[in-house]
Amino acid sequence: MTADGPDSELLARVFLSRVLEPGDEVAGRWVRELGAAETVRVLRKGAPQLAGVTDKRWAGLHARAREADAERDLGLAREAGVRFVIPGDTEWSAQLDDLGDARPVGLWVRGRPSLRMWALRSVAVVGARACTEYGAHMAATLGAGLAERGWVVVSGGAYGVDGAAHRGALGAGGATVAVLASGVDRPYPRGHTELINRIAEQGLVVGELPLGEHPTASRFIVRNRVIAALTRGTVVVEAAHRSGSLVTARAAQRLGRHTMGVPGPATSSLSAGVHELLRDDAVLVTDAAEVVELVGDMGELAPQRRGPVLPRDLLEPGARRVLAALPGRGTASADAVARGAQTTRDDAIARLYELRSLGYVERHGDGWKLTRQAMISVRDGRGGC
Amino acid sequence: MTADGPDSELLARVFLSRVLEPGDEVAGRWVRELGAAETVRVLRKGAPQLAGVTDKRWAGLHARAREADAERDLGLAREAGVRFVIPGDTEWSAQLDDLGDARPVGLWVRGRPSLRMWALRSVAVVGARACTEYGAHMAATLGAGLAERGWVVVSGGAYGVDGAAHRGALGAGGATVAVLASGVDRPYPRGHTELINRIAEQGLVVGELPLGEHPTASRFIVRNRVIAALTRGTVVVEAAHRSGSLVTARAAQRLGRHTMGVPGPATSSLSAGVHELLRDDAVLVTDAAEVVELVGDMGELAPQRRGPVLPRDLLEPGARRVLAALPGRGTASADAVARGAQTTRDDAIARLYELRSLGYVERHGDGWKLTRQAMISVRDGRGGC
Repeated sequence: MTADGPDSELLARVFLSRVLEPGDEVAGRWVRELGAAETVRVLRKGAPQLAGVTDKRWAGLHARAREADAERDLGLAREAGVRFVIPGDTEWSAQLDDLGDARPVGLWVRGRPSLRMWALRSVAVVGARACTEYGAHMAATLGAGLAERGWVVVSGGAYGVDGAAHRGALGAGGATVAVLASGVDRPYPRGHTELINRIAEQGLVVGELPLGEHPTASRFIVRNRVIAALTRGTVVVEAAHRSGSLVTARAAQRLGRHTMGVPGPATSSLSAGVHELLRDDAVLVTDAAEVVELVGDMGELAPQRRGPVLPRDLLEPGARRVLAALPGRGTASADAVARGAQTTRDDAIARLYELRSLGYVERHGDGWKLTRQAMISVRDGRGGC
Repeated sequence: MTADGPDSELLARVFLSRVLEPGDEVAGRWVRELGAAETVRVLRKGAPQLAGVTDKRWAGLHARAREADAERDLGLAREAGVRFVIPGDTEWSAQLDDLGDARPVGLWVRGRPSLRMWALRSVAVVGARACTEYGAHMAATLGAGLAERGWVVVSGGAYGVDGAAHRGALGAGGATVAVLASGVDRPYPRGHTELINRIAEQGLVVGELPLGEHPTASRFIVRNRVIAALTRGTVVVEAAHRSGSLVTARAAQRLGRHTMGVPGPATSSLSAGVHELLRDDAVLVTDAAEVVELVGDMGELAPQRRGPVLPRDLLEPGARRVLAALPGRGTASADAVARGAQTTRDDAIARLYELRSLGYVERHGDGWKLTRQAMISVRDGRGGC
């Protein structure tokens, strides 16, 4: 590992991503107090032992630190088309900072869109793996409905509710993010390999763990805080008592995000956890419109209401081409926009959702159109600001 | 009609029950400001016209006043085993006074138990007439569960949820009250004649309208405020948007009663009204324990927690006999108590629920036992106070 080059912060965090377990708040405090690079130095040297850790655990961290090779990890990731986004990057979502010392040291990201832009207008839809047909139906309907309203659907890629929510969003030509409890090159569960690869093509697959890492029971649990933090709110579709989805919902509550639940029959044990949540502070929702009514009600976070927030000249060339491919009046399909911008459909969709977050475009059913404000800024020659 | 005998207030209110439509707040104000007897005198003489009423309506009231015969109404009711309970009577429930000028002028009552005592520990269970099997199941389960916990189940005697709630309570050997929108001698709907007669045997059938009166659409609506006022809280099991059950729930909310809803599938139009309510202020409940947890949480209204509230010597002889029939330790069935008290099972149950309201007895599953406080008062020879 190189010492103090321009990549030193990045490499230090890649190293920590390999050595530390996600969600370790004691280690998070070291990073906050010493900085990433100094934490790496201490972990590699081994002494003096840092505060708040047993001898045994310190030895374990030390052993992992000896094995870690940040440059190799980063190189392999780049070959696999995976980037590592860290605090301070333009793509870093400040929403993750709400996690305090449990903030990820960085996120491994597969997919074209900007994590930060997508997180701005996203909702988590989570629930039971062994869901009922009703649960799968509701998750798919919510996923599609949120996508149709221009919202990004975030979930955990699992069987049941998670998968149905992702598929609902994809099926509606919408945006979706899978947050994994494993390396982003290790789709889990195996039966969702095709789905997760498709999400990486059309959306984003992200995770805290470096390539090759497998999920564990505790990694699933701590992963849930990332889903809660990345999104504006969490909807639980079906969950038994003591379900992992409730962990996500409680994390969302603690983070001041909206917590929502889809009711089910009082006789269904798979709705019992949701009803428990609804008897506390969560809001009952029955469709995507009700979800959007709640999460969309935050002026400063809904830039489309105020029009574009970034001057057109500062957009990336790819985004500018997609913007230019939209008609002056009326809507265009994602396919038509892709043809006009001479890019793939998936890239066009990713750009359209970014432009949506920035207030340039709106989604109407299957079509995309310029916002009123974007049109005015074009007419006035103000360049979109 | 006699002038100023001891029954003059009663007869005046019987007269008003025949002449005024239930829930008429303008007329309620006359009664409050002039008193019942003076209101009757003005209505019979016809002039001067009272405030807040059109000429046409005044003429209508006048015509009805000419036809009314309070002594005959009261006589026929007594022959039919029906009593008229008015404000100031020991059986009057002060909870009804919360209705202000919409307070009933009195309530016609069929059945043995004391309306006031039963209302003290009662919950309304209401919902759609055309309910689903799920709704009927939940209503029956709640009715039985509330009865098993010693709570009186109040409903409107209708098909669907109402009927299932009544039957659930009756089936569990519990207490139930049907509040009709017709005369209590006119069971409605006709198909529930047997059920409503059984409620009158084992519980109470009450209504604002004098014998022979039929229900109308508006009478159903205004009846709902009586259900809301008589009870500690209202549970809506299934209700479509704009359902009459929501009127009861909103009335309960305005009266400061607990408002509860049983969730159902988000895809069910018969749960849509309940979900609407739950998105406002109502509390989601899935079983009787959750209902009782909520409505039972009012210290001064749950005398069983403090032990008996009425000296044993002041109990009616029938209630004293039932109390004496309970074993010093352990539980007895309602049948055993009836045998011991030399009365019918229905009478024993009615008395047991009264004694429950007064803090003397508790229900445990199918059995009844003395409360700890009642036992102590016997041991100490304090006569139950």
